[in-house]
Amino acid sequence: MRSFKINENIIKYTFGDPLETESVIKNKGEEIKEDLKYLTLEEEGFTFGLKKEDIIYGLGENVGGINKRGRIFESFCTDDFSHTPEKKSLYGAHNFFVVHGEKTFGVFLDFGGKVIFDLGFNDKDKLKIKVSENDFNLYIIDGDNILDIVKNFRDIIGMSYVAPKWALGVGQSRWGYKNEEDIRNVLSRYEKEEMPLDMIYLDIDYMKDFKNFTVDTERFKDFEGFVKEFKEKGIRLIPIIDAGCKIEKGYDVYEEGIKNNFYCNDENGDPFVAAVWPGLVHFPDFLNKDARRWFGLKYKFLTDKGIEGFWNDMNEPAIFYSEKRLKEAFNYIDSFKDKNIGIYDYFDLSSSFDKLKNSIEDYKSFYHNIDGNLIRHDRVHNLFGFNMTRSASEGLKEIDENKRFLLFSRASTVGMHRYGGIWTGDNASWFEHIKLNLQMMPGINMCGFIFTGADTGGFGSNANEELVIRWSALSLFTPLFRNHAALGTRNQEPYSFSKEGRETLKNILDLRYALIPHLYSEYMKSILNNDMYFKPLAFEYNDDFSKRVEDQLLLGDSLMIAPVYEENAKGRYVYIPEDMLLLKANSLENIEFEVCKKGVSYMDLELNEVPIFIRKNKMLVINNSNAKRVEEIDEDTLDVFAFVDNKAIYTYYNDDGITNDFKEGKFEKIDIVIENDKENYKIEAKSIGLKKEKKLNLTIFNLDGSRVEKKITIS
Amino acid sequence: MRSFKINENIIKYTFGDPLETESVIKNKGEEIKEDLKYLTLEEEGFTFGLKKEDIIYGLGENVGGINKRGRIFESFCTDDFSHTPEKKSLYGAHNFFVVHGEKTFGVFLDFGGKVIFDLGFNDKDKLKIKVSENDFNLYIIDGDNILDIVKNFRDIIGMSYVAPKWALGVGQSRWGYKNEEDIRNVLSRYEKEEMPLDMIYLDIDYMKDFKNFTVDTERFKDFEGFVKEFKEKGIRLIPIIDAGCKIEKGYDVYEEGIKNNFYCNDENGDPFVAAVWPGLVHFPDFLNKDARRWFGLKYKFLTDKGIEGFWNDMNEPAIFYSEKRLKEAFNYIDSFKDKNIGIYDYFDLSSSFDKLKNSIEDYKSFYHNIDGNLIRHDRVHNLFGFNMTRSASEGLKEIDENKRFLLFSRASTVGMHRYGGIWTGDNASWFEHIKLNLQMMPGINMCGFIFTGADTGGFGSNANEELVIRWSALSLFTPLFRNHAALGTRNQEPYSFSKEGRETLKNILDLRYALIPHLYSEYMKSILNNDMYFKPLAFEYNDDFSKRVEDQLLLGDSLMIAPVYEENAKGRYVYIPEDMLLLKANSLENIEFEVCKKGVSYMDLELNEVPIFIRKNKMLVINNSNAKRVEEIDEDTLDVFAFVDNKAIYTYYNDDGITNDFKEGKFEKIDIVIENDKENYKIEAKSIGLKKEKKLNLTIFNLDGSRVEKKITIS
Repeated sequence: MRSFKINENIIKYTFGDPLETESVIKNKGEEIKEDLKYLTLEEEGFTFGLKKEDIIYGLGENVGGINKRGRIFESFCTDDFSHTPEKKSLYGAHNFFVVHGEKTFGVFLDFGGKVIFDLGFNDKDKLKIKVSENDFNLYIIDGDNILDIVKNFRDIIGMSYVAPKWALGVGQSRWGYKNEEDIRNVLSRYEKEEMPLDMIYLDIDYMKDFKNFTVDTERFKDFEGFVKEFKEKGIRLIPIIDAGCKIEKGYDVYEEGIKNNFYCNDENGDPFVAAVWPGLVHFPDFLNKDARRWFGLKYKFLTDKGIEGFWNDMNEPAIFYSEKRLKEAFNYIDSFKDKNIGIYDYFDLSSSFDKLKNSIEDYKSFYHNIDGNLIRHDRVHNLFGFNMTRSASEGLKEIDENKRFLLFSRASTVGMHRYGGIWTGDNASWFEHIKLNLQMMPGINMCGFIFTGADTGGFGSNANEELVIRWSALSLFTPLFRNHAALGTRNQEPYSFSKEGRETLKNILDLRYALIPHLYSEYMKSILNNDMYFKPLAFEYNDDFSKRVEDQLLLGDSLMIAPVYEENAKGRYVYIPEDMLLLKANSLENIEFEVCKKGVSYMDLELNEVPIFIRKNKMLVINNSNAKRVEEIDEDTLDVFAFVDNKAIYTYYNDDGITNDFKEGKFEKIDIVIENDKENYKIEAKSIGLKKEKKLNLTIFNLDGSRVEKKITIS
Repeated sequence: MRSFKINENIIKYTFGDPLETESVIKNKGEEIKEDLKYLTLEEEGFTFGLKKEDIIYGLGENVGGINKRGRIFESFCTDDFSHTPEKKSLYGAHNFFVVHGEKTFGVFLDFGGKVIFDLGFNDKDKLKIKVSENDFNLYIIDGDNILDIVKNFRDIIGMSYVAPKWALGVGQSRWGYKNEEDIRNVLSRYEKEEMPLDMIYLDIDYMKDFKNFTVDTERFKDFEGFVKEFKEKGIRLIPIIDAGCKIEKGYDVYEEGIKNNFYCNDENGDPFVAAVWPGLVHFPDFLNKDARRWFGLKYKFLTDKGIEGFWNDMNEPAIFYSEKRLKEAFNYIDSFKDKNIGIYDYFDLSSSFDKLKNSIEDYKSFYHNIDGNLIRHDRVHNLFGFNMTRSASEGLKEIDENKRFLLFSRASTVGMHRYGGIWTGDNASWFEHIKLNLQMMPGINMCGFIFTGADTGGFGSNANEELVIRWSALSLFTPLFRNHAALGTRNQEPYSFSKEGRETLKNILDLRYALIPHLYSEYMKSILNNDMYFKPLAFEYNDDFSKRVEDQLLLGDSLMIAPVYEENAKGRYVYIPEDMLLLKANSLENIEFEVCKKGVSYMDLELNEVPIFIRKNKMLVINNSNAKRVEEIDEDTLDVFAFVDNKAIYTYYNDDGITNDFKEGKFEKIDIVIENDKENYKIEAKSIGLKKEKKLNLTIFNLDGSRVEKKITIS
């Protein structure tokens, strides 16, 4: 073990001779003599003795609560559609966590292969980390408090991907919109209901035989014209790209990849063959920088047609089967034919096909060419989706350097956060998954992924109206707000339900657009400040009870959310860590305000009511222009709701939303300060970068709920 | 449709010419001219327009909340180990529910085949019932309130099965205790920890090649001696019996069944062949009364060896595959060999074996001989498990008429409740399933099943210490308290955990034994009075909030329970519908009392603390004799805790626990009345049937929490 001081708060411990994962950017430091902090290296791996009160935050996209203690996880990107409570791996491999207790510290395990995190599962008082190989880097991160540790970690892994502002609009998706007509129908139904919308997603159906960078011209006769037609209506089409590329003579992606040896090879040096949606495919070697550049520039096929956003899928990589092992399965099954079959034989037999899926044996049988070195896939498995999305991101940058593309991925690792967002994969239409969605968010943010959200309404199984409403009332707050469902499931678009349900959903979507000035401001600030968009209460409040709260989140600097996630509920319990102002809305025209006192209580909530809590001395900024597209939002007039004890502060951020000019200082910022000056309010608003005058309509609430309205204009 | 007045509250509507299911006992009534009440018969089935506030209780063993509204269910006994939130069918078919709202009424669908209950899933405001055939009886049950409707229903379906009192002790089970040594080890570990225990369950491992009514003599050299050895230590061994009987020349059960045509036949009149644990089996025709009697008397093989209890399993009936369809699957798979396989072909292919499981095609291909009529299985599918357990019950009655045997089943229908209890099948070690366990209980009770409980700690997947503790703190209250787990899962016996965990679990088990006088009293009264052992709060409290409570239950007449079911929780929210006395125990030596005021609050609960709420003007009766077997409980001294406003009443019931003599009036009953008579308490205790003097140590709490201790002796 060698120790390197990265900075005042972070030490990197290098074990063996690790491969550079590029998860961490600031990974250089002076070598020092320093023993391993906090952890002990035992035969079973790294261990830490947990105290009774210790809480463990992090590990990104995984099942379980906000506090991950008591569980065991395997960091290994896995395509598993069944997110049941015992699952150890989902699509992401997010090896950063913080232990919060007598000792508070962060750990990041920088490694591309499998890592097991036993957070008190086998022994309730012992945290154990088992890395599957001997070559890796381990970072120990200190800080003044949990949030500070997260910020310190985020600092060394680099700035998160910045989505275009329109990507904070509403997106509609479904596996099974199969042609122009289906897509047109989605938009016309949205329009008929006067529901806002910015994106329609294209799932694998748009491709010709599921081939990347193709369009089925029978189902989309003039794709470029179609994209343009929608763009003119303010709607962007967002196609999917899969990791595997179809093996098909004459298909350019196939031919070029073969010619240049850009695909992953098997042990014999032949391109590895797996089956996924297109049938037999090769996997581009995203860890080979030449292959990565080649694949990334392929996105031009679609950007040339006017496409401005993508979602990368199946990039764990998911494998339905490999040719070789399918043959073995056939032979195995064949050996039982006409024989007497014992019942255990039968179980073996009946799992013959199932066990072909995402088999570790397959992952052990193909290789990456990393700067000339052949590295077996399983050793760098977790870097695959990362580098697919990096490939896309780098390609898109080359295609249009200053343009912000929408880009998010299913598989991911720390490092990919610099190139794209993630969605949380193939969840189900279960109320339990609304809660899981909420509980996943802070851990994902901790690992640098800010542009994130879940398939609203659930991907698998059938949703009912209430579930879609309650879920939408959570997605209302997530940067990615996309309603998405699997082929064969019940329709769950917001226009699919009863008149009452459609009305409620329309109101939630309208509320989203009214909130976008605030949400975008918080989204950008959390990226620019290495901050978290969603935080557990205990990241800001030091009281003991805040540590217990598993179903409420702080959103940015000003808000707390507490969505309902139980069927037939008419409200929910809520913990108020300090006096807050509750905004309860069932439409933009009907907003009620109520001061909530610190403590526990039960909040009544009709199915059509959405609660938003404004923290003490904080503000909420909304725009009530009834925009149906993000670009239509009138940002020159903002309604500010402030809950003021002595002095409330809010920093409003905005920029053009479509370029990277903000990096050159081209953005708007207003520091609003409202001071309670003995029965009067002193309002100050310092701005930089304003291109136009802004009108602020302020409604200022004091602790007893009485309100004052003020108008100011800033230039 | 013909209408029959069963009594003042119940009308039976007969459609077509239904088969007698024997679910209802009091099913005769005068034919009347009466239109269908509440429901409307439309093309899509029976419908009822749901009002916004309507709640739906019932449908027994199913996923979902206490309020089943918004969901869709298929009543069709199904062996499905994955109790995920979208599941429509589990092991039971319990077709009774109550709509509670502007109109409050009960519905029982008396039919042996599939029935679909759409409780507002497809249309949130419409309840729909679709029966798969045209011949069935429909009962509409009225009453003064929800509980009264349940009692009226329970009255016509007959008295519930009465378990022996020792069956309320703790049972330990595991699929995989494979021989005498394993079983001895269980007991010695319990003894070492001084944990109480009454039963050890034998899963399929004890049989010779999974053959019913056999014992593997290699693994159990002297089974009769072994049973006796354990009985002498106060432990009863409870073997499993499966529905399918192995096809094996010379095996008596096989030979006799074949000889007498007691097995279900296929369309050709040959015994139907399915594969389950023993490999290929025949299913006894439990709907044929001669076969039923024959199979029931087979239990004598084990009762002769000293066995006094059984659990009937795999009696949906579960089918892994049928020979015929396995052959088809092989041929189907074979047809793809060496061919080009499309991806959708592959999905078909890979599900070839999976879809053999519990296939409706199989259920449509065998027949029952009901009084000489051949009836296709799928039409009476839900009666199969019922009649297997009836077979056992009737056999055991013939074997020893006055003895109470322990008997419970996995599959069930209304009617079976007269013959045995149920456990809730193959759940998982998920915290979500602790909540599901709680939520299932009242619906199951409504359908007549009082002896019930879940696999404590979860059957599938791996449990951690905290989960087993929290789950045990719920099972503490269920009549059936059995820790059970699947082969290959992590050990979860209470002695398997840390010292601290073992201590907590020991305390919970000890508390169970202290509570047994009370639990048995409530258990018996709920049977004798057609009452519910577990009730939702809204069955007793009329306030609006009680209707919302989905995670608390009333236990019998006096108690409310509110267990913790969330990981890492240090307490929970609780709703107190009237002032109650909270008893918080972390051991029998350390019980704290606290008066809880009506309203919502948050209750702190350490992992080692169990909460019990005593309702106002009610009492809790416990015995603190540190018994390690139910039979050791000293019932001559009882500690009574009463929470008295003006007048508290409790009826204590007890009997010999092992015979049916209680039916002849041989039981003990004490009516305890404590009246708050201006700063003094007037205590009255009227008893009948006492054989010995009873000492009652009363601790009487008034509303402000101050207490008075009194001792009385009753003879």
